[in-house]
Amino acid sequence: MSAEPADAAYQGTRGAFSEEAARTLLGGGAKLLACATFAAAFEAVNDRRARFAVLPIENTLAGSIHTNYDLLASGTLEIVGEAVLRISHALIAAPGVQMEDVRRVLSHPVALAQCEGFFRRNPHITAVPVYDTAGAAEQVVDDGVPGAAAIASANAAEVYGGVILERELEDHTQNFTRFLLLGPAGDKQTAPRNAGVGGGGSSHKTSLMVRLANRPGALHSCLGAFASRQVDLVKIESRPLHGAPFEYLFYLDVAGRIEDAVVADGVAAVAPYALSLRVLGSYPCAPAPRE
Amino acid sequence: MSAEPADAAYQGTRGAFSEEAARTLLGGGAKLLACATFAAAFEAVNDRRARFAVLPIENTLAGSIHTNYDLLASGTLEIVGEAVLRISHALIAAPGVQMEDVRRVLSHPVALAQCEGFFRRNPHITAVPVYDTAGAAEQVVDDGVPGAAAIASANAAEVYGGVILERELEDHTQNFTRFLLLGPAGDKQTAPRNAGVGGGGSSHKTSLMVRLANRPGALHSCLGAFASRQVDLVKIESRPLHGAPFEYLFYLDVAGRIEDAVVADGVAAVAPYALSLRVLGSYPCAPAPRE
Repeated sequence: MSAEPADAAYQGTRGAFSEEAARTLLGGGAKLLACATFAAAFEAVNDRRARFAVLPIENTLAGSIHTNYDLLASGTLEIVGEAVLRISHALIAAPGVQMEDVRRVLSHPVALAQCEGFFRRNPHITAVPVYDTAGAAEQVVDDGVPGAAAIASANAAEVYGGVILERELEDHTQNFTRFLLLGPAGDKQTAPRNAGVGGGGSSHKTSLMVRLANRPGALHSCLGAFASRQVDLVKIESRPLHGAPFEYLFYLDVAGRIEDAVVADGVAAVAPYALSLRVLGSYPCAPAPRE
Repeated sequence: MSAEPADAAYQGTRGAFSEEAARTLLGGGAKLLACATFAAAFEAVNDRRARFAVLPIENTLAGSIHTNYDLLASGTLEIVGEAVLRISHALIAAPGVQMEDVRRVLSHPVALAQCEGFFRRNPHITAVPVYDTAGAAEQVVDDGVPGAAAIASANAAEVYGGVILERELEDHTQNFTRFLLLGPAGDKQTAPRNAGVGGGGSSHKTSLMVRLANRPGALHSCLGAFASRQVDLVKIESRPLHGAPFEYLFYLDVAGRIEDAVVADGVAAVAPYALSLRVLGSYPCAPAPRE
């Protein structure tokens, strides 16, 4: 417990996309703590074993990760930054392995499914599901079996000393994941210097979680609180809830800082319509991701 | 090509949750076609090898499946029904295998992750990732290895002749998936008799996909078209798009049939605000899922 806390906790192993997001947000030299689950990364900040947590929150193909919104709803951490990463898959093997040797390709089933075209073009190669992309890269490099390769990030090849046989294996290039940087709620002095990566920190957004009664027009009135103040809506999503048929949970991201009068007034104006309202954070927008 | 078409195509193997959704929608005796991918199930209807396709569209923990919205956006199929299934995981083994024998549990990594508590309570059991839940059940029953079990639906145990060692392994009981029944667009006579499972067909919804210019208030005006007509909003979601920073894609589900004057007028009133607008279907609501 006396050890210096890590700069950030993330879910996955070294070379995972979350690690890359953490380095984008906190710099290449950041001390990172790899955790087995999203909840464990979140808890590491609560327990002061890490100053921040970096968690994925939505993907352009797979949608929002509601379980991570649930962690945020507990209110002990708040969003202090974000990063958007292009998810691109590389084919990685041990040094010396040639493309024509490869007969088995290991990766997470979601990554394998995103590279369907590659397996169609190479019918002699078998897809082998394993736990995670970076772990697959580590395994094929360590084992050094000539017939095996892995699908993972180019970063994983570097981390584990593998060679990249092919890049951009994915079928859809519009594959981006948005990651959140989370810190202790209300702990203003902990906001990292590098998290203001959004074009000089000029552009900010504020994330809200709002529970509304299931009444025609409730959401329209809620959004009117922002529209009438010219506050732009960046994201809106209703969360499907079962067991609560008379209420709805919404995620809203609006442009601006919570300190801006129009945003603060908009939030205050929503309150009368809301069964509950939580500000999840107010933070610099990520720059457009590298293509 | 002369063969009678299947009643419905679905992604997965026998015993998959999608198969259960298809039987809920079309009856236990329906002739079903198992496909390797969502796109292949969709194509099977386009090619007249199946009358309908059954695809998952959103999950209460994992969010919306944008890739299936993309298939719908092509416009050749429309939504004609829906079903909501509780996703519950059972521990399945070959007949004769006892709980105390089990050392390895096979399943899809998403299912394994949803049963984290089970693996924490049983540290002597190793989780083994494989391609799909139903395939894991088939494998452990066929192999008959005493130390192996699978996590899959109770239905998969029945299909493959396995025994259920434990039920409800999942950490979160609020795990529901909504499935859509898709048929050829405009082909009114193909609507299945059983798809009207929504409380005698009295409750309907209409699904829309709307592209709006990125202007403060554009969405508020769009929703006003329905709110002013007392049309309830059942779902709203903005889709994160990259490469198109000045426009937004929204999914909207509103209560009512497209033939209802208030719904039709609402859709017509949205059109001036929309860069594009597509009615994905108008269909009976699913009944509340069995708990």
